[in-house]
Amino acid sequence: MAITWENLDKLSSYKKLQSLKNAVSVKKELSDANAAERVKKYSVPMGAGLTYNYAAKQVDDKVLAVLKELAAEAQLTEKFAATYNGEVINTGEKRMVLHHLCRGQLGNNVMADGANKRDFYINEQKRIADFAEKVHSGAIVNAKGEKFTTVVQIGIGGSDLGPRAMYLALENWAKATGTFKMEAKFISNVDPDDATAVLKSTDLAHSIFILVSKSGTTLETLTNESFVKDALKKAGLEPSKHMIAVTSETSPLAHNPDYLEAFYMDDYIGGRYSSTSGVGGAVLSLAFGAKVFDDFLKGAAEEDKLATNEDILKNPALLDALIGIYERNVQNYPATAVLPYSQALSRFPAHLQQLDMESNGKSVNRFGDAIDYVTGPVIFGEPGTNGQHSFYQLLHQGTDIIPLQFIAFKENQAGNDVVIEDSTSQTKLGANVTAQIMAFACGKADSDPNKSFAGERPSSLIYAKQLTPSVLGALLAHFENKVMFQGFVWNINSFDQEGVQLGKKLAKTVLSGKADGALKAYTELLDL
Amino acid sequence: MAITWENLDKLSSYKKLQSLKNAVSVKKELSDANAAERVKKYSVPMGAGLTYNYAAKQVDDKVLAVLKELAAEAQLTEKFAATYNGEVINTGEKRMVLHHLCRGQLGNNVMADGANKRDFYINEQKRIADFAEKVHSGAIVNAKGEKFTTVVQIGIGGSDLGPRAMYLALENWAKATGTFKMEAKFISNVDPDDATAVLKSTDLAHSIFILVSKSGTTLETLTNESFVKDALKKAGLEPSKHMIAVTSETSPLAHNPDYLEAFYMDDYIGGRYSSTSGVGGAVLSLAFGAKVFDDFLKGAAEEDKLATNEDILKNPALLDALIGIYERNVQNYPATAVLPYSQALSRFPAHLQQLDMESNGKSVNRFGDAIDYVTGPVIFGEPGTNGQHSFYQLLHQGTDIIPLQFIAFKENQAGNDVVIEDSTSQTKLGANVTAQIMAFACGKADSDPNKSFAGERPSSLIYAKQLTPSVLGALLAHFENKVMFQGFVWNINSFDQEGVQLGKKLAKTVLSGKADGALKAYTELLDL
Repeated sequence: MAITWENLDKLSSYKKLQSLKNAVSVKKELSDANAAERVKKYSVPMGAGLTYNYAAKQVDDKVLAVLKELAAEAQLTEKFAATYNGEVINTGEKRMVLHHLCRGQLGNNVMADGANKRDFYINEQKRIADFAEKVHSGAIVNAKGEKFTTVVQIGIGGSDLGPRAMYLALENWAKATGTFKMEAKFISNVDPDDATAVLKSTDLAHSIFILVSKSGTTLETLTNESFVKDALKKAGLEPSKHMIAVTSETSPLAHNPDYLEAFYMDDYIGGRYSSTSGVGGAVLSLAFGAKVFDDFLKGAAEEDKLATNEDILKNPALLDALIGIYERNVQNYPATAVLPYSQALSRFPAHLQQLDMESNGKSVNRFGDAIDYVTGPVIFGEPGTNGQHSFYQLLHQGTDIIPLQFIAFKENQAGNDVVIEDSTSQTKLGANVTAQIMAFACGKADSDPNKSFAGERPSSLIYAKQLTPSVLGALLAHFENKVMFQGFVWNINSFDQEGVQLGKKLAKTVLSGKADGALKAYTELLDL
Repeated sequence: MAITWENLDKLSSYKKLQSLKNAVSVKKELSDANAAERVKKYSVPMGAGLTYNYAAKQVDDKVLAVLKELAAEAQLTEKFAATYNGEVINTGEKRMVLHHLCRGQLGNNVMADGANKRDFYINEQKRIADFAEKVHSGAIVNAKGEKFTTVVQIGIGGSDLGPRAMYLALENWAKATGTFKMEAKFISNVDPDDATAVLKSTDLAHSIFILVSKSGTTLETLTNESFVKDALKKAGLEPSKHMIAVTSETSPLAHNPDYLEAFYMDDYIGGRYSSTSGVGGAVLSLAFGAKVFDDFLKGAAEEDKLATNEDILKNPALLDALIGIYERNVQNYPATAVLPYSQALSRFPAHLQQLDMESNGKSVNRFGDAIDYVTGPVIFGEPGTNGQHSFYQLLHQGTDIIPLQFIAFKENQAGNDVVIEDSTSQTKLGANVTAQIMAFACGKADSDPNKSFAGERPSSLIYAKQLTPSVLGALLAHFENKVMFQGFVWNINSFDQEGVQLGKKLAKTVLSGKADGALKAYTELLDL
């Protein structure tokens, strides 16, 4: 059947969904005699051994049936297939959306720019793996013939948050499993104090710097490159022997003798979807070895494959997306909190904040027409149990309901633990996750209203045995695909970001000295 | 006049305020011929040389006049005076709220527990200063007679986020100004991987560990203490020679030979308000010296003094609070983003998230009665310019309006910069702040709706010459007082956190093996 792109409020299943507002009480469902059954039943396998459990979400078989209709009517898996088969899904910039081809064998061959794009991405991965192997083995060394020990990524936004979050997620796992190769650091902000602090704590002579910019023109990144080059020169080092680039083949950084090596990406992979491309590949392969990055891709590929399933009960990303639509457009919840019970995922919420809010923070549909319903929510979060001692107060007893996304693992990464009051820290961590899910869902009445909990706060739980490279890949791909499916439901283009342009343009006006009116008055406040 | 505590919707000025919904177009105000005048006029000095500018907020003289009425009718400065003069403002826990006494000479002497509380706090500061001086001078050393070089804070929530954010805010300033004494690290999460990673990278023999827990019973903190003690013993070190405590005098950690020294706080200072008490004082004085901590307190004291002013146009915390009430309760905005254009403030938004959401995420008034209006918003944020390449897309073009709080400085901390395309990075940073304020307020029409910006996104700008200890103190106190004033307006108790109790209780149920029903089913998913 041909694909049609309709606004959400034109779909008959959406009207049906609207009639199901507040249809399900999670308090009732999870206090019920059959509650344990529900917890077991409302569960879908994800890739790489992860599981998505939605027993504490405000759905029942009736709501799920309508979500299934919505998935079919909006042709969500067909639209995913169109994406990985190379249709021009990014209508704003008139580009294909091909990040899935970095990590698997879904769909047809996609030809562009005179090449098979899957082959192109895989070839770049091989080149990166080869380069990383040479750095680790000492075939590529510094001017004194010494091995490199540190890698510093220079990038911002998609070239920073995803790779940084992934590095932190695997750093302690790699150290515990003996796969740790090189420490990674990151420079992103145009604030000169960012580069200064990182460079001050870095052994320059033994560092490789990765300059990441698709266009090769990102102001922050070029500015920070200059910082790095200055520092290298002051240390008597030759920058071109310490710097590599990840960029597009048409950028000024490509085929440029100023860089020891360059790896290529293209316009079909957006920054926030680039962790599985060379943008994540170079730094993660250098830090942990190419095998770890390959396992990460395999986990993502497993999740991608599940995302092709038309049955929403066997497609966790699709189901998560649809439940999110119900929460946003029917229940009218304005925000979602991401709560990983794992210190290793400390920056994962910041990456999802970018992925989700930059993709789906839109007010026009994919054809540029205004839409009459809300799109992407605010995304925020911090690791548990830290968050419990911080913003959870509002989540439990505030006046707005905020849906929650818990993430948990049975085992920690470092394998080091301590028993206090008859339980390990890891057991305490897990006990807190389960306790929070139930507290949010069921609440508790108390004669003191200040100690009463209304409950009815919906949450889902994603869990696995341990946070490994393949699990991380599946986790990342789950959210990438969830965000994509939600964009399809809202009939928006999740793959451009025109909202960032106006600020850039006005900043140039300021820097060129041409500001006037209120803008000039503001620049005077800051003595610009 | 006697103080009365009324719900917001009982106030006549609030009804007036409701009639002013959408009364002001910031697009119009900042595009107007007199816009530059507005930018200059809508500005209030804060403490320590900071300025609060609200020219891009949705207010005009008419709205401000009603906010002034609201401040008077709700007796906001009278309630602040009652607070620092020792009334039982924390009605839930029946406690006074005395963090202001840590940092200045506001109000009367407050007697409690047989002591003058101001003297008590100041005496603890002196004891901390003396201890830090001895550590720095080498009068207090490790078993081998060597100086301590590192300080590690063990705490969670209020004992972690504030002190951590303050340390990061001043670390590079201290390094640049020669006041840096010791590196600080932090262990917080019950996830065992947190303590493992920090301890692995720490030179134990030269480290002092600060155990911070008011009650001395915080599960995460005691668990992490055990981690630290194990590590010290394994390294052949005597824990009691490496550990100090910050706690209440009635806790098991007080007057305990297991600690080299103990510093005291009390129940009148809540965790999230404790950065200016010994909770922040010990780690910051050890890291930077007592003089730096004293300057930090002086900045906070300056801001506290301004917060006593009845004139809302001369009281920046009060004005910020009132504008926030207008945005939350009249304009119905669900969230606020905090956007510091300073890498040093990387964790400041996380601290404000705790401060605000834990204080004002409440659904009952200070007497325990249900209220019929919304209270605290979701707070989130990341430093600029990083955020511009991440979630700003939604802020500019999403379907919800999110008010913004920008923070900026004229000068960086490290004094290191680079000129690219005729401007320094610091100038680029500032240019971006001003550009964003104008882009959010005024938007831009475009024939392509996907490139159109509706504008009307309100923001304020807090700025100073440089982020120094006194500026940081004033910045922190500004937000503490803002949150307090908003709590007064909503007639809620901003100083308890009953919402964190139920989860704790259920976690204990799990750990004792007594879970049943859905809770048991969840524990089985995680093999607990």
